[in-house]
Amino acid sequence: MIAEQLETLLADVAAGRLAPQAALERLRHLPFEDLPFARIDHHRALRQGHPEVVFCEGKTPEQVLAICERLESASGSFLGTRANEAVASRLRERFPGIVWNPVARTVHLSPTGSPRARTGPILVVSAGTSDLPVAEEAAVVSEVFGHDVERLVDVGVAGLHRVLAASDQIQRARVVIVVAGMEGALPSVVGGMVSVPVIAVPTSIGYGASFGGLAALLGMLNSCAAGVTVVNIDNGFGAAAAASRICRG
Amino acid sequence: MIAEQLETLLADVAAGRLAPQAALERLRHLPFEDLPFARIDHHRALRQGHPEVVFCEGKTPEQVLAICERLESASGSFLGTRANEAVASRLRERFPGIVWNPVARTVHLSPTGSPRARTGPILVVSAGTSDLPVAEEAAVVSEVFGHDVERLVDVGVAGLHRVLAASDQIQRARVVIVVAGMEGALPSVVGGMVSVPVIAVPTSIGYGASFGGLAALLGMLNSCAAGVTVVNIDNGFGAAAAASRICRG
Amino acid sequence: MIAEQLETLLADVAAGRLAPQAALERLRHLPFEDLPFARIDHHRALRQGHPEVVFCEGKTPEQVLAICERLESASGSFLGTRANEAVASRLRERFPGIVWNPVARTVHLSPTGSPRARTGPILVVSAGTSDLPVAEEAAVVSEVFGHDVERLVDVGVAGLHRVLAASDQIQRARVVIVVAGMEGALPSVVGGMVSVPVIAVPTSIGYGASFGGLAALLGMLNSCAAGVTVVNIDNGFGAAAAASRICRG
Amino acid sequence: MIAEQLETLLADVAAGRLAPQAALERLRHLPFEDLPFARIDHHRALRQGHPEVVFCEGKTPEQVLAICERLESASGSFLGTRANEAVASRLRERFPGIVWNPVARTVHLSPTGSPRARTGPILVVSAGTSDLPVAEEAAVVSEVFGHDVERLVDVGVAGLHRVLAASDQIQRARVVIVVAGMEGALPSVVGGMVSVPVIAVPTSIGYGASFGGLAALLGMLNSCAAGVTVVNIDNGFGAAAAASRICRG
Amino acid sequence: MIAEQLETLLADVAAGRLAPQAALERLRHLPFEDLPFARIDHHRALRQGHPEVVFCEGKTPEQVLAICERLESASGSFLGTRANEAVASRLRERFPGIVWNPVARTVHLSPTGSPRARTGPILVVSAGTSDLPVAEEAAVVSEVFGHDVERLVDVGVAGLHRVLAASDQIQRARVVIVVAGMEGALPSVVGGMVSVPVIAVPTSIGYGASFGGLAALLGMLNSCAAGVTVVNIDNGFGAAAAASRICRG
Amino acid sequence: MIAEQLETLLADVAAGRLAPQAALERLRHLPFEDLPFARIDHHRALRQGHPEVVFCEGKTPEQVLAICERLESASGSFLGTRANEAVASRLRERFPGIVWNPVARTVHLSPTGSPRARTGPILVVSAGTSDLPVAEEAAVVSEVFGHDVERLVDVGVAGLHRVLAASDQIQRARVVIVVAGMEGALPSVVGGMVSVPVIAVPTSIGYGASFGGLAALLGMLNSCAAGVTVVNIDNGFGAAAAASRICRG
Amino acid sequence: MIAEQLETLLADVAAGRLAPQAALERLRHLPFEDLPFARIDHHRALRQGHPEVVFCEGKTPEQVLAICERLESASGSFLGTRANEAVASRLRERFPGIVWNPVARTVHLSPTGSPRARTGPILVVSAGTSDLPVAEEAAVVSEVFGHDVERLVDVGVAGLHRVLAASDQIQRARVVIVVAGMEGALPSVVGGMVSVPVIAVPTSIGYGASFGGLAALLGMLNSCAAGVTVVNIDNGFGAAAAASRICRG
Amino acid sequence: MIAEQLETLLADVAAGRLAPQAALERLRHLPFEDLPFARIDHHRALRQGHPEVVFCEGKTPEQVLAICERLESASGSFLGTRANEAVASRLRERFPGIVWNPVARTVHLSPTGSPRARTGPILVVSAGTSDLPVAEEAAVVSEVFGHDVERLVDVGVAGLHRVLAASDQIQRARVVIVVAGMEGALPSVVGGMVSVPVIAVPTSIGYGASFGGLAALLGMLNSCAAGVTVVNIDNGFGAAAAASRICRG
Repeated sequence: MIAEQLETLLADVAAGRLAPQAALERLRHLPFEDLPFARIDHHRALRQGHPEVVFCEGKTPEQVLAICERLESASGSFLGTRANEAVASRLRERFPGIVWNPVARTVHLSPTGSPRARTGPILVVSAGTSDLPVAEEAAVVSEVFGHDVERLVDVGVAGLHRVLAASDQIQRARVVIVVAGMEGALPSVVGGMVSVPVIAVPTSIGYGASFGGLAALLGMLNSCAAGVTVVNIDNGFGAAAAASRICRG
Repeated sequence: MIAEQLETLLADVAAGRLAPQAALERLRHLPFEDLPFARIDHHRALRQGHPEVVFCEGKTPEQVLAICERLESASGSFLGTRANEAVASRLRERFPGIVWNPVARTVHLSPTGSPRARTGPILVVSAGTSDLPVAEEAAVVSEVFGHDVERLVDVGVAGLHRVLAASDQIQRARVVIVVAGMEGALPSVVGGMVSVPVIAVPTSIGYGASFGGLAALLGMLNSCAAGVTVVNIDNGFGAAAAASRICRG
Repeated sequence: MIAEQLETLLADVAAGRLAPQAALERLRHLPFEDLPFARIDHHRALRQGHPEVVFCEGKTPEQVLAICERLESASGSFLGTRANEAVASRLRERFPGIVWNPVARTVHLSPTGSPRARTGPILVVSAGTSDLPVAEEAAVVSEVFGHDVERLVDVGVAGLHRVLAASDQIQRARVVIVVAGMEGALPSVVGGMVSVPVIAVPTSIGYGASFGGLAALLGMLNSCAAGVTVVNIDNGFGAAAAASRICRG
Repeated sequence: MIAEQLETLLADVAAGRLAPQAALERLRHLPFEDLPFARIDHHRALRQGHPEVVFCEGKTPEQVLAICERLESASGSFLGTRANEAVASRLRERFPGIVWNPVARTVHLSPTGSPRARTGPILVVSAGTSDLPVAEEAAVVSEVFGHDVERLVDVGVAGLHRVLAASDQIQRARVVIVVAGMEGALPSVVGGMVSVPVIAVPTSIGYGASFGGLAALLGMLNSCAAGVTVVNIDNGFGAAAAASRICRG
Repeated sequence: MIAEQLETLLADVAAGRLAPQAALERLRHLPFEDLPFARIDHHRALRQGHPEVVFCEGKTPEQVLAICERLESASGSFLGTRANEAVASRLRERFPGIVWNPVARTVHLSPTGSPRARTGPILVVSAGTSDLPVAEEAAVVSEVFGHDVERLVDVGVAGLHRVLAASDQIQRARVVIVVAGMEGALPSVVGGMVSVPVIAVPTSIGYGASFGGLAALLGMLNSCAAGVTVVNIDNGFGAAAAASRICRG
Repeated sequence: MIAEQLETLLADVAAGRLAPQAALERLRHLPFEDLPFARIDHHRALRQGHPEVVFCEGKTPEQVLAICERLESASGSFLGTRANEAVASRLRERFPGIVWNPVARTVHLSPTGSPRARTGPILVVSAGTSDLPVAEEAAVVSEVFGHDVERLVDVGVAGLHRVLAASDQIQRARVVIVVAGMEGALPSVVGGMVSVPVIAVPTSIGYGASFGGLAALLGMLNSCAAGVTVVNIDNGFGAAAAASRICRG
Repeated sequence: MIAEQLETLLADVAAGRLAPQAALERLRHLPFEDLPFARIDHHRALRQGHPEVVFCEGKTPEQVLAICERLESASGSFLGTRANEAVASRLRERFPGIVWNPVARTVHLSPTGSPRARTGPILVVSAGTSDLPVAEEAAVVSEVFGHDVERLVDVGVAGLHRVLAASDQIQRARVVIVVAGMEGALPSVVGGMVSVPVIAVPTSIGYGASFGGLAALLGMLNSCAAGVTVVNIDNGFGAAAAASRICRG
Repeated sequence: MIAEQLETLLADVAAGRLAPQAALERLRHLPFEDLPFARIDHHRALRQGHPEVVFCEGKTPEQVLAICERLESASGSFLGTRANEAVASRLRERFPGIVWNPVARTVHLSPTGSPRARTGPILVVSAGTSDLPVAEEAAVVSEVFGHDVERLVDVGVAGLHRVLAASDQIQRARVVIVVAGMEGALPSVVGGMVSVPVIAVPTSIGYGASFGGLAALLGMLNSCAAGVTVVNIDNGFGAAAAASRICRG
């Protein structure tokens, strides 16, 4: 139940078409439905501003489908992350209109109406080719959440001229998401160039003492550029959700 | 040199009172001055939107004073964090107008003009009494950066009614900074209640397997509330800088 | 040899049907048998209140079968955890009456008599769909140990209303087992709601800086709800064993 | 407001001496009071079965006193942990009846009525002389919470005969709290001897690769005795709170 | 070139059959041969008392064979650890007399003469069925090095009676190797029972917070039984080599 | 009660001067005495071959004195480790004959009879000046336990000629204890030179990424010299106890 | 665009065949080209002295090919590391002249002209057979960068005579790259023998507490031989790049 | 005994003034002297190119003095690092000509002759004011070793213009030592700008999740600029020794 639907309900109450007590009861009973293996939270759109997102990794295609069917019937749309081909295929049988992005590993069904335009753009900067899956997850989720998105790829701190050449593009973003593995230094450089929010996403790319992204994570937490914030390793979705919170503000 | 001063310079150029070449030269030579032990970056206000902040820990009062004198002569103001009483006393001899907050461990000299009002409020939520120094650092820095600030103290997840009782206050913030030690669960709860940006600050409060804030840091990075971002342990200043980036957007 | 069988033996002694010395000798020689690869401890039921449980992971189906045959002949029942389909199939050939739960990965043969009713219920709460295998292991083992079990699934701290809606159910449990991955905050919330024992089980669910459950483990150890205790990562069996110790008290 | 006081209130409602609406309002406004630096949760006794406990470390004697005064006026009693001599002295000036235990570092004011007898005993076992402060914290808090407590000191796994000699005492406990540093093996041994709940408390005692209690913590989490649960390093209070939850069940 | 062969050489020198200078030169040129991928150290038997052992993991069967051929031609025997079936098959084609132990994952070719009897016995104690491969590696290597070996399997600290029942056997060993995973407590118990050397081998057996044997390793390093020494995780070979050093002393 | 005293007791039994039952009872009641804060294990000399050693760190001089008085009255001797000057002074008032070694931080009272000569020598090798306290603890404890001890100081792997120059001394030891901080490579070098047991003691000496001795500990556990065993960081006492076990064999 | 090509361009400018402004513009626009998934930095040869190297792991053969085609057309050569057979085969179809080294996992296309001779030799020392892939990566990359390379294999610190026997060869190197796993002690020994730069490469070889190369890494960082520097675990390429920087100086 | 002295000795041999046998004997007996607590390696200058350096931390002023006296009598000079005021004062009493640098914490006595000019310059770049002690240690040691040294202070990656403004100075160095705490990103930026060797020194500066320099260390090991090498945390001396090895080549 998205915001529009709730407004209708409240208008019905205001117009006397629905008793407050009945409205309250309906609201109280709506929050989540009982699937045998998951409870779906249709109110999240109200509280957090975007529909519940299905983390597909570790769920069978059938489980994902069952959850998405409930989401679709409640709100007309859904978004899945970490969706492999098997999940996408199973969903497509039931919802031919889905869009699956194999690099970003996202699958989503757009609502029928056009998304409300929101502030932006959100700029997604990535340091290396290997960081692309995480960067694309951030970019696609941002788009699905209704924001304009720009991308800037393969700009590493060992080649500063690449970053500097993109200075204008970086400056005009509303939020910058910086995706980097290895030493995770790129957010510090970008954070020093702009005054807008910078969200750093460490990736598990690297070898040896990168320890699965730990080096990049620690680097970003210790950034010497004040005001850089960090999300979990490889968590492109989380960065997009944070960027969306900022843009909606 | 803050934005206002730069505008004057550019106006002088536009009015023909200053040759562009001379202006450029002045700008090029302004960025930093050579102290024997530190370079001060007066342009930072242009790039990042707030004056350079002096991290006082590990510096002698004399070193802090020398840096602040340069900052004051360039911009008329300064802000120091992790400032103990010795630092504050030394600065007060030279700048009687400073404000020292012993809980937040901040010291600052306000610019003569009143700060431009900015969006807000920034709400600083803290979980326990012991988290107050970090929370106050976040709050005071936010105020010095020109934002309205509200505080909500001692709301822990083991007593949910406390959080819920403050629901209205939490909902109307532009940004929420959540400061918590121990298991670091409060940002997840707050993040699930609001759609605005939530910045989590782990503190080193706790004992045993809190490992100096590591438990809270990991908890916040793994928050099940999408879109929560994290800054370094005890980094109240960084959270305020990030919140300020968001509010200025 | 479970408690009932021991009572018979002691009764025989009391009735003069068995000399004390002979009884002592029999007891002394019973404790464990010599398999080539494992010693089975039939006295454990006496000392710890439940039969020895076979941890099947890393054992061949033949090894599991050999151990279970000895257990069955001594006590008439057995319980295996981490049992995959191959193990279950091999056991079923020999013991058609076994029950295999593929989600919980448990297999057990019930004793012929009905289990003595014990106090309860034990409530197993889990945070996410992915936590289900661990939660089910805890639930099934609790049932096999003779306790009433209730389940509450998919209640995360980012959606507090879900937890609050189940408040009544949580309050009436004798023990609450809380299974959660990611930041591991759910036990703190539940621990703050009830006065009964709360056993926290961190799971290895999560990604990035969850570090295979370390984040959840540290979060639970640092819980701000006093009196929450913790078992090993993914150790649903251990939580059930602890809950059973409490209920038998 | 402890349970007795609440029963009076409810009886007043039942007897018509207090309108339900007025009672509700009073309850709603009672939960916590606003100190400038802490909120006190008087309802906790209702929800969790014991009064809020003040963690004194990191608080000034004045702050502790202010919190204890509110607690005393609401419930007639209080309990502080990690209380050093300065805290105890300051509290004694105001509350001459307090009891301070310098080994356990606890300070408490007993309620005027005698505590209701509760099940027990809780047995606190400690491995070495150096573990005594943590063990005593567990023991004293258990006593303050109204339980019978027994102590068994200096029984290590390298001298099994010591443990075995106390076998009878261990067997008759309702709950066993085992406090140990170094390799943390004692809970496994005790857990294998009894069928009652065993709560393990790792201590930071040890040197070299004990890493501040990490070795003992990991040892206890990996205990081969099924059903042993663990609390945080040095957290004697937490173990007592957990034991109290079990005994009250 | 084993000790016997060296004695012959020296005897030849003493008898005038070999000039000292020629003997020296031969010795100097013998130490290692140049294979394209490995240098073999035939003198090790002189310096360390046993032939060089081939760690087969990560080497191709052909590489292992080439190394063993050189060892065999120099000394008449060899020993390989971590040898899988492919390695064993390849070696058997060339050396039909090899012995392969699939549990211990060892393969060896005995010297033609019978090994000199050495002191002992070396007792290998293991805690669980899953620890058997490491325990067997320790036992078989000890035997190949010429020692009498006894085995005691499946004696865990949660069932003390099992350990105590084997007290006599443990007491009469010359060295005890204790192999254990999980909390690694068994060496402390055994170390407290005997005055002979105790070598602890942590295994990677366990789950959750065992962290691949780290918990057991730390437990053993922090053993409260004085004089227990530790080798690397899963390093059954190293324990046997250490035991052999002791027995040869 | 050391071995000699026990022999007397048994001889009394054999001679009819003491009834077996009385002897048994005395033995059963002897094992440990009840001090308020510690139990002393007089039987340890029987089981492990040396008297109980008092770890003085973290105990008050009065506590140490009380324990030593019991030990002295039972066996005529005691040994304390990590003994600072305050402890030594307090003990000297009561036992003028004690020997305090301020570098090794040991204090001991020798038994009146001369120690029985034991095999040896035990060679203690240390890598740097800063490792001396740990090396001396190992050496002094070895001497107190009745062994001949030799010392070899300041031989590091970056100056191989130092090690090689001492080759003869190293070769003739019965056991070598190698004490080293930093990268902990010395035991590998020594282990490759001799065939006798090598016990490695990592020290917390070093800076930066030595992490309090962790680097040396890991280096020693991964030694490429087969059969090197390791004790805890800075645990000179433990190394001596292990060496003593070997020499007594 | 390698240095030669740049010299041509500059000569054209000097000769008046190219206007400075045009040259500048061309240079400014040359730095990188836009592939959909990677930006290639042709200027790197100018700035860092060697062409950009393609890290092939995690890229498809098609992606590697596309990058190499751009590199070849710009500079006539390329170098790929971590190249498996699939990558090599795909490249060979297009560039028959490539050289693929399956042990070093490198693939490269040499420039048509002969490489300029550079100082050397670079000596690559490796400790064990299992370290060969990393050592070969260092050796081959050094050769491709135009340096003379020598190799010394299988010299471990447990057999010092092997190192000493190669003393002459080690002494005459311009730079020594030392590749070692396990305890990582070899660089300390080599560093103590020579006065030239020593670059240490820890490898992930080892088991148990080697923790994927962490033990070797820490050992090397804590080397007691002053002036040893370290690169990332398994980073043979990085060591070669560092050695090349030194030789070109 | 530095190189010059050795040359004299060898010349004496060549000229017949010293018998070879006598020369050999003198050399053999020179390597180190026996102090009770340290062996001094006078040959190190021959092998490694600089005199032995005394790490003063953890040594008493008397111990430092005794070592320096031996060094001075052998070579006429010495260098101490981590020297506090007490050490410097004690040395000055005996050697009035010493130079003590309280920021670098170095103390040294120059040889009477002027140092031979060596290649350079060595450029020491530091990121923040707090990194100065480590940077100064690197700079002063480099000077004492006979190299020209330049310094560049307070250039962080969050203010790229500072680094770029010093581009010319950075380009002309023979070696660059980069000292940085926090995220340790500066070496990547500098490494991308130059083709000469870059030695990275992580410092323990930072707070929260910098974990005593671990974040900077990991960042530097994972640098995306190929050929950056790393020394231990805070090890300014080691960086200077490595730079000196390079410059002497």
